[in-house]
Amino acid sequence: MTGPTGAIEGRGSAMEVGRLSAAQVAGVLTRVRERGPLVHCMTNIVVAGSTANVLLAVGASPAMVENQEESGEFAAVADALLVNLGTLSAERAVAMRAATASARAAGTPWVLDPVAVGPLAFRTRLAADLLAQRPAVVRGNPSEVLSLAGAAGTGRGVDSTATSQDAMGSAYDLAARTGCVVAVSGVVDYITDGATVLQVRTGDPLMTRVTGLGCALGALVAACCAVEESALVAATVATTVFTVAGEVAAAASAGPGSFAVALLDALAVLDETTIAAHPGIG
Amino acid sequence: MTGPTGAIEGRGSAMEVGRLSAAQVAGVLTRVRERGPLVHCMTNIVVAGSTANVLLAVGASPAMVENQEESGEFAAVADALLVNLGTLSAERAVAMRAATASARAAGTPWVLDPVAVGPLAFRTRLAADLLAQRPAVVRGNPSEVLSLAGAAGTGRGVDSTATSQDAMGSAYDLAARTGCVVAVSGVVDYITDGATVLQVRTGDPLMTRVTGLGCALGALVAACCAVEESALVAATVATTVFTVAGEVAAAASAGPGSFAVALLDALAVLDETTIAAHPGIG
Amino acid sequence: MTGPTGAIEGRGSAMEVGRLSAAQVAGVLTRVRERGPLVHCMTNIVVAGSTANVLLAVGASPAMVENQEESGEFAAVADALLVNLGTLSAERAVAMRAATASARAAGTPWVLDPVAVGPLAFRTRLAADLLAQRPAVVRGNPSEVLSLAGAAGTGRGVDSTATSQDAMGSAYDLAARTGCVVAVSGVVDYITDGATVLQVRTGDPLMTRVTGLGCALGALVAACCAVEESALVAATVATTVFTVAGEVAAAASAGPGSFAVALLDALAVLDETTIAAHPGIG
Repeated sequence: MTGPTGAIEGRGSAMEVGRLSAAQVAGVLTRVRERGPLVHCMTNIVVAGSTANVLLAVGASPAMVENQEESGEFAAVADALLVNLGTLSAERAVAMRAATASARAAGTPWVLDPVAVGPLAFRTRLAADLLAQRPAVVRGNPSEVLSLAGAAGTGRGVDSTATSQDAMGSAYDLAARTGCVVAVSGVVDYITDGATVLQVRTGDPLMTRVTGLGCALGALVAACCAVEESALVAATVATTVFTVAGEVAAAASAGPGSFAVALLDALAVLDETTIAAHPGIG
Repeated sequence: MTGPTGAIEGRGSAMEVGRLSAAQVAGVLTRVRERGPLVHCMTNIVVAGSTANVLLAVGASPAMVENQEESGEFAAVADALLVNLGTLSAERAVAMRAATASARAAGTPWVLDPVAVGPLAFRTRLAADLLAQRPAVVRGNPSEVLSLAGAAGTGRGVDSTATSQDAMGSAYDLAARTGCVVAVSGVVDYITDGATVLQVRTGDPLMTRVTGLGCALGALVAACCAVEESALVAATVATTVFTVAGEVAAAASAGPGSFAVALLDALAVLDETTIAAHPGIG
Repeated sequence: MTGPTGAIEGRGSAMEVGRLSAAQVAGVLTRVRERGPLVHCMTNIVVAGSTANVLLAVGASPAMVENQEESGEFAAVADALLVNLGTLSAERAVAMRAATASARAAGTPWVLDPVAVGPLAFRTRLAADLLAQRPAVVRGNPSEVLSLAGAAGTGRGVDSTATSQDAMGSAYDLAARTGCVVAVSGVVDYITDGATVLQVRTGDPLMTRVTGLGCALGALVAACCAVEESALVAATVATTVFTVAGEVAAAASAGPGSFAVALLDALAVLDETTIAAHPGIG
């Protein structure tokens, strides 16, 4: 890890904020490509296809298994599990409870993406319950993280009305309390384990004009958790890989349609040189 | 509204057919971009992703919530609701009943897309029931509109074997009887509130070679209903925006794959000048 | 059919392996484009959109109907049916039983894609039951075909750890025992009716970097079954069309994102000349 590059205000103390080096990021990405981890995705109907394509682009192996008859069985043999609460149903909730319990028992690292928690009571209760199954990483937008941490929710839908900086204090507290790594997306992404905070400053506004890129990032975090023991590093690598590819794609795009295509192309060939050339703004 | 540009035969009388000006269309589109309406989409698994991308391309904010635990709650806070009957299930039908009742109570404008009604009894009954919850707009292909209006259905699947002109009389009657605006898609699109008929003559045959563009148009109609009080104008604006973007995209495409990509790019930058330059053929 | 081009080892005997001519392939493709068969797809949430787009690109008419209230009714009127076990649920399983029974009774040809059978008990039992409804074609990867044939499964997820050659003996036995055509995908694709074996050697590694192309191929097989009485020929034509389009697309692509787009463009214009110019490697 490179040294701290700044500090932001936490709850009562300044937190040191660091970053990973391009070599660290590329190293984890290379392991994903070499090992091709099997990522069990329980995600929503909107993004299932694009999430699978993101995983395939980086060399991981996606498998969407979401019924209660199979989800527990599969979570135990997969290399990582993603649980994303978009397009939830009562049946999926049962399957998610089974899968996360099984993942915990088997030692499969898993990622919780608490889509739209806060304004909707049903999924907010489920997310709170799933937290008890010890996800390796919780990845959400600022509103979702604020809600999950018990602060007043500010979102109305899947988009956030708070900034990642607004949510950092809550993210830090949530991580410290639960032992999970918490990743908050935004113009600047923050990732914390309740002790250290890492930041990622790369990315492009076009990433908000294509559906489900946050959801796909959750899957990429899971893929990295399968090959990297530190969930803090894994989540930060995934965020860096995704947002640098976003910068590469934005430079080659005419709009959101061509951007989504170029993003997959960029992910497939991303290397340390390109990562080093996109250091973010600060 | 510009003056009438022709007349077509209705049930027993000639209907005046008008069009919107490019400035009117661009005005509503600008309001969508500025306000970013939250559009609650209950749609099918085939098109959920592409529908979300169409909404994001015009600056709206899609949210897919379709379970019965949450759909009513969410329809009350969204700016508009889309109910699309493709890939229906018994559970989704319950959730759709809850959402439309909630939308009506909360004054949320909503759009019904009666995919494949007619040949399939289960969804045909549901569509008839949902009509009682007063959608702002019913958007369908000619066969679907004929079926919903009580005429003999002519479709076998999601494609229509009748033309939009065949269905205009039924659309007019249905609109007059229910108080909903009815939009019939085809080579020429007709939109009527049972008093006035507006037509849209732009579009390209490639739009029928990409799945779910009709479904995405339904979502765009909902987005426009969120920022424009006249459902007749909102539906016509959405249809014009979508089909003009289709013409722009077709000119830049090598086939259905690149067309779908170019369509999103075109939607993101469409302006009054481009709209005025694509006036349709008549 | 062109003459045999080689032989591979079966269970105790050498099997003659043949190929179709470019004219035979183009002839069936032309019939698909002319007749636009209605293909009832019961497939998974990951690939529903891309499958529909593949069918539309070749001129077929996809319709996704998967609830138990409608699937039987629809399978009887469709021109062909695809049953794909990805993202299975208990409800979908019921609907699939109804649809396949109805297809058999109505004489609708249907295709079984046994996604991930083997490692997961629930779907493995379902697949065995569905086989009794006499699919025209079973299309799977080597691990899936080995599992279905009763050999020890070797897959962990949707990807196969065996080669198509490994599975040929089992495919041959399964076809001979059930009367179904069995198509095994791989670097070389083999298709057999238990008497003849046809092979397809075209394709590109990028086809494994885009989600659901195997699933889309299953739908294309169904479309070809609707216009070609010999299921052996239909499955081989679909495989040839898809993999030749893959070669055309790969030559025009910068990565998996642009490849998926180019594949649809290539399918829409594929003709006999192009097919003849991509004869495979052996």
